[in-house]
Amino acid sequence: MIKAGLIGFGYWGPNLARNLYASKEFKLECICDEKKDNLLKARKLYPNIKLTEKPEDVLNNPLIEAVIIASSVNTHYDFARQALLNGKDVLIEKPMTDSFKKAAEIYELSLKLNRKVMIDHTFLYNGAVRKIKEIIDKKSLGNIQYIDSTRINLGKFQNDVNVLWDLASHDISIINFLMAEKPQYVQAIGKIYYSEVKENIAFLILHYSSGLIAHMNCSWLSPVKIRKMLIGGSKKMIVYDDIEPSDKIKIYDSSVNVLKVKDKGKILVDYRVGDITIPKFSIEEPLSLLIKDFALAIKQGKKPVSDILTGLETVKILELAQESIVNNGKLLNYKL
Amino acid sequence: MIKAGLIGFGYWGPNLARNLYASKEFKLECICDEKKDNLLKARKLYPNIKLTEKPEDVLNNPLIEAVIIASSVNTHYDFARQALLNGKDVLIEKPMTDSFKKAAEIYELSLKLNRKVMIDHTFLYNGAVRKIKEIIDKKSLGNIQYIDSTRINLGKFQNDVNVLWDLASHDISIINFLMAEKPQYVQAIGKIYYSEVKENIAFLILHYSSGLIAHMNCSWLSPVKIRKMLIGGSKKMIVYDDIEPSDKIKIYDSSVNVLKVKDKGKILVDYRVGDITIPKFSIEEPLSLLIKDFALAIKQGKKPVSDILTGLETVKILELAQESIVNNGKLLNYKL
Amino acid sequence: MIKAGLIGFGYWGPNLARNLYASKEFKLECICDEKKDNLLKARKLYPNIKLTEKPEDVLNNPLIEAVIIASSVNTHYDFARQALLNGKDVLIEKPMTDSFKKAAEIYELSLKLNRKVMIDHTFLYNGAVRKIKEIIDKKSLGNIQYIDSTRINLGKFQNDVNVLWDLASHDISIINFLMAEKPQYVQAIGKIYYSEVKENIAFLILHYSSGLIAHMNCSWLSPVKIRKMLIGGSKKMIVYDDIEPSDKIKIYDSSVNVLKVKDKGKILVDYRVGDITIPKFSIEEPLSLLIKDFALAIKQGKKPVSDILTGLETVKILELAQESIVNNGKLLNYKL
Amino acid sequence: MIKAGLIGFGYWGPNLARNLYASKEFKLECICDEKKDNLLKARKLYPNIKLTEKPEDVLNNPLIEAVIIASSVNTHYDFARQALLNGKDVLIEKPMTDSFKKAAEIYELSLKLNRKVMIDHTFLYNGAVRKIKEIIDKKSLGNIQYIDSTRINLGKFQNDVNVLWDLASHDISIINFLMAEKPQYVQAIGKIYYSEVKENIAFLILHYSSGLIAHMNCSWLSPVKIRKMLIGGSKKMIVYDDIEPSDKIKIYDSSVNVLKVKDKGKILVDYRVGDITIPKFSIEEPLSLLIKDFALAIKQGKKPVSDILTGLETVKILELAQESIVNNGKLLNYKL
Repeated sequence: MIKAGLIGFGYWGPNLARNLYASKEFKLECICDEKKDNLLKARKLYPNIKLTEKPEDVLNNPLIEAVIIASSVNTHYDFARQALLNGKDVLIEKPMTDSFKKAAEIYELSLKLNRKVMIDHTFLYNGAVRKIKEIIDKKSLGNIQYIDSTRINLGKFQNDVNVLWDLASHDISIINFLMAEKPQYVQAIGKIYYSEVKENIAFLILHYSSGLIAHMNCSWLSPVKIRKMLIGGSKKMIVYDDIEPSDKIKIYDSSVNVLKVKDKGKILVDYRVGDITIPKFSIEEPLSLLIKDFALAIKQGKKPVSDILTGLETVKILELAQESIVNNGKLLNYKL
Repeated sequence: MIKAGLIGFGYWGPNLARNLYASKEFKLECICDEKKDNLLKARKLYPNIKLTEKPEDVLNNPLIEAVIIASSVNTHYDFARQALLNGKDVLIEKPMTDSFKKAAEIYELSLKLNRKVMIDHTFLYNGAVRKIKEIIDKKSLGNIQYIDSTRINLGKFQNDVNVLWDLASHDISIINFLMAEKPQYVQAIGKIYYSEVKENIAFLILHYSSGLIAHMNCSWLSPVKIRKMLIGGSKKMIVYDDIEPSDKIKIYDSSVNVLKVKDKGKILVDYRVGDITIPKFSIEEPLSLLIKDFALAIKQGKKPVSDILTGLETVKILELAQESIVNNGKLLNYKL
Repeated sequence: MIKAGLIGFGYWGPNLARNLYASKEFKLECICDEKKDNLLKARKLYPNIKLTEKPEDVLNNPLIEAVIIASSVNTHYDFARQALLNGKDVLIEKPMTDSFKKAAEIYELSLKLNRKVMIDHTFLYNGAVRKIKEIIDKKSLGNIQYIDSTRINLGKFQNDVNVLWDLASHDISIINFLMAEKPQYVQAIGKIYYSEVKENIAFLILHYSSGLIAHMNCSWLSPVKIRKMLIGGSKKMIVYDDIEPSDKIKIYDSSVNVLKVKDKGKILVDYRVGDITIPKFSIEEPLSLLIKDFALAIKQGKKPVSDILTGLETVKILELAQESIVNNGKLLNYKL
Repeated sequence: MIKAGLIGFGYWGPNLARNLYASKEFKLECICDEKKDNLLKARKLYPNIKLTEKPEDVLNNPLIEAVIIASSVNTHYDFARQALLNGKDVLIEKPMTDSFKKAAEIYELSLKLNRKVMIDHTFLYNGAVRKIKEIIDKKSLGNIQYIDSTRINLGKFQNDVNVLWDLASHDISIINFLMAEKPQYVQAIGKIYYSEVKENIAFLILHYSSGLIAHMNCSWLSPVKIRKMLIGGSKKMIVYDDIEPSDKIKIYDSSVNVLKVKDKGKILVDYRVGDITIPKFSIEEPLSLLIKDFALAIKQGKKPVSDILTGLETVKILELAQESIVNNGKLLNYKL
């Protein structure tokens, strides 16, 4: 079993701990959190696991082979760097870092030291997302024309990053996972309501050379929680509603056909509306699959689904989005 | 009774005809449509009303006092102008015209000739919208921070205007109706998938000097029909879902309070989540109220709710949005 | 064209008038209603049609070939009888009569006088119901095990019949249409809250020799309107929700298999849960199809889908249900 | 801390274990399950807690003060009896026993030995149910006229009891909790589809002397999971939908008023439809509150909300329902 240490037992850390603890591949040796409250919760759940307030107790512990980082975003770079330098494999909660420069350094370091770095973009292991990828890969939808995602709720305001880093990071990684191509241009518009924090509402638009446009609507100020993604293809369309208790994915056998331009500027548009299918998909816990993928990466060198490039690309797009917001939605060229 | 003539019996015209016919204020004398098929439908429903294929039969008929224009957008200007010059009052289906220049001319002409021109922005007479206005006017929501509207469905592609002129024209008129202030800046991003037609998907963002941001997501390419508007205030928030059969308006007694910046860059955010109220509102047919308002404007000189300025402002914003789309979402100054 | 007279222009009559008026098969000659208010509404909509307060003006008019009866239930028998005796074909709004004895008399009379009598069970022409029949006829569901229908709303209390005659009459006719077999036993339980009226809440249970059980929950006292029917088969199951704006029919590829009795009283049950399909179906107005079917019955002798036997069977079951309610839910034998 | 032993670690046991483990009042000493698989799961979660396959190790352990029974229904009586005889306080998963005779014996024994017996009807600690009780206790609804509950899903078929014992046991305890009065009559209708098991579909109707009628629709054969309870009062009505992620309780300010009987058999019914309110309520885990209540009962002698009488009454009604099913829905007198 791979001996693992977890840094961060706040919001997401307990989920990682639970899955590491239940895993047959990992042995969770140590949990670190700077807050005593969080350590008390860990004590209650895992009386036999070593606890510490000092990240160094994990990072410098020679017994520990893999470090899982779930602390606040602005600490990711330091902890990941130190872990790599100490010869450990690393799993980092998304977003990978708070700047592309830092992410690129971690990437270079991982190559140089030949260590695995994986990013916890959990949605790439979600049964619904994997089912949608399966459908897209079968070319069932035709050409993908647009992706429109709404990811809004009340809070949780974050200290160090804006709402896109928090919420759109999910959409970006999902879209990059689903689509073969990468965006050509990035633009974003955002709004700060409370001067103490960064953008609480923001809209991110990605333009692709194929003609695909992806639009993401993110907010920490919505009274209702919405997690809805529309994927429009030339043959079929998908609505993925992650809040729906049962019917999360609907495949619409609907399409539009702009037939021809008739004289006098009239056009003839044909709308085809057919059956809707709600496919069944695996409901295995995504985080458990991610942990397995991390073990395979470490032990067999397998490229994980949520690999370091996924993290890198996501951070790059987020950084460009931030720059575009400052420049009133300016169109910026994307290149990794 | 005011003697009225209707030009256009295609998609919206029959609704106007039905309400004019049922009205106690108007006598519908004549229906005009260039298509024989449409006239046959009119014949069946109104065997006693005069029918014609020539707009002149309405515009030049000295008996007719009011002209209602429901023909395609690019004909609005000519018909309205001719009707005014012939001394008639005019009701124009939204959007008022296909350019601001034309709209301004009609406006000037109506002042000069002292004729009433009203625009059919039907939503301003909708019970749900009027209830929301009532709530906002009572200051129940606190400061309005954002409005986020999604108005998407499959089709109907239009010949001469893009999706914003078709769909966002509703949102713009509603938002202008609800809010005391007008936007400061307009920006929009759109996408053309079929070269024969104009933008089928577009996002419109309005910035206000108060800090309010309004975001509109419009599409003719969605497999599902969504009509959802979120209005976020500092005290309460509203979700208005026009597709819901019964619970169209939900008032959330929820708010966010960013309390203070603590040291080390930490912020303290307080989330208050209370009861939700679904208020009852009048379900009287909006178009019937609009027709009454038109009669009052003609007979008593009352300023109608959906007045010519509403039409003018909407067209100005749509025109700026179009310009912004061509310029990759450039921020444009709004001034009537 | 068949010359038709309509008796009753209250709640349902206007819908019949509109469809008769639009039909190419019928010429609506005369509308009768005992209330002046209702006639005024008819005058406005159909200025050219003869109006009367006296049913005799329709029933005894030698020009009229077909009489459509949409007056209150307790008048159906008299009007239908008189129309038949005067040689006319008859369409009666559901329920056919307020007693089985009367329904049977009308049935005998129609045979004796060789006149068509059809009952307006509109749901048998509804696209969703016809689609479900198509699915059942293809044996896709396996053996139908249960039908569970909820048909509740606030009002409209009726003067002369209880809630089952008003609401369950729909379910009974739909179930008889969908299933090849007729019920073996009928039982019902009901509750009167207001002594002035009949049962406002009632539960009707039909038992079939095949093992099928049908349960109907009907109420005039529910704050929400529900129209939901579950149809459970051994292979697949259907949920039909008539309130849903778009996804009215869902076919669940789910089933239960009780495999075997293991020792120690343990059973092994296998649950299969697969995809869900939402089939597209025709949205043609059901009443328009019913009117066509009435014309075909008169002109070509075609047996209509909603024939007199449908009306007869429904009334028989309703009468037994009423008897069962009085006897605390006693199981009563059904035989036509 | 009260030293506790848990018997049964199958479906519900793990939830009890988790809450006992997290409780400050109890110390979970021992977990018993006859299946090795279940014990392995317990081992993983609670490496420090003693495990056993033999109930006697819990029942006869002198250190253990409180026994929590979550094994199959037919074992409840034996285990509870033995625990009481050994001087322990007892918490029994619902339903209390599989016959009223056994439940009554446990009741007598608890009185005689002066030991606490509490039944785990968890819903009585559910925030939504407690909020509804609060509303009813304030007389906001007026006279309660009907309760209509639908509790259906696919499976889980049980070995030893029918669907009412499994599902209606929730409704019965909730209704007894909400209403001051107890039912006067019980009747039920059920259906067995698979001879190996008991009724899989059943309808239970309770009649009250106040005029209240309660109807429960329970099924293990529905493709959709429904948990919906309507509570109709003379002033207001409630819809409680436990599946809704957020808006579980809706209070309808709607009512019906049957005003008077006019001449000619006409009645005048007034429908009042007002606002709808969705009240906020506590989302504290119900089972955690129940465990606290159990501790208070043991330590301070407080009568718990889900007391032994709740269990006794529920079992009595279930037993009468079973008798009524066998007698085709015969109305049976309820008396504890």
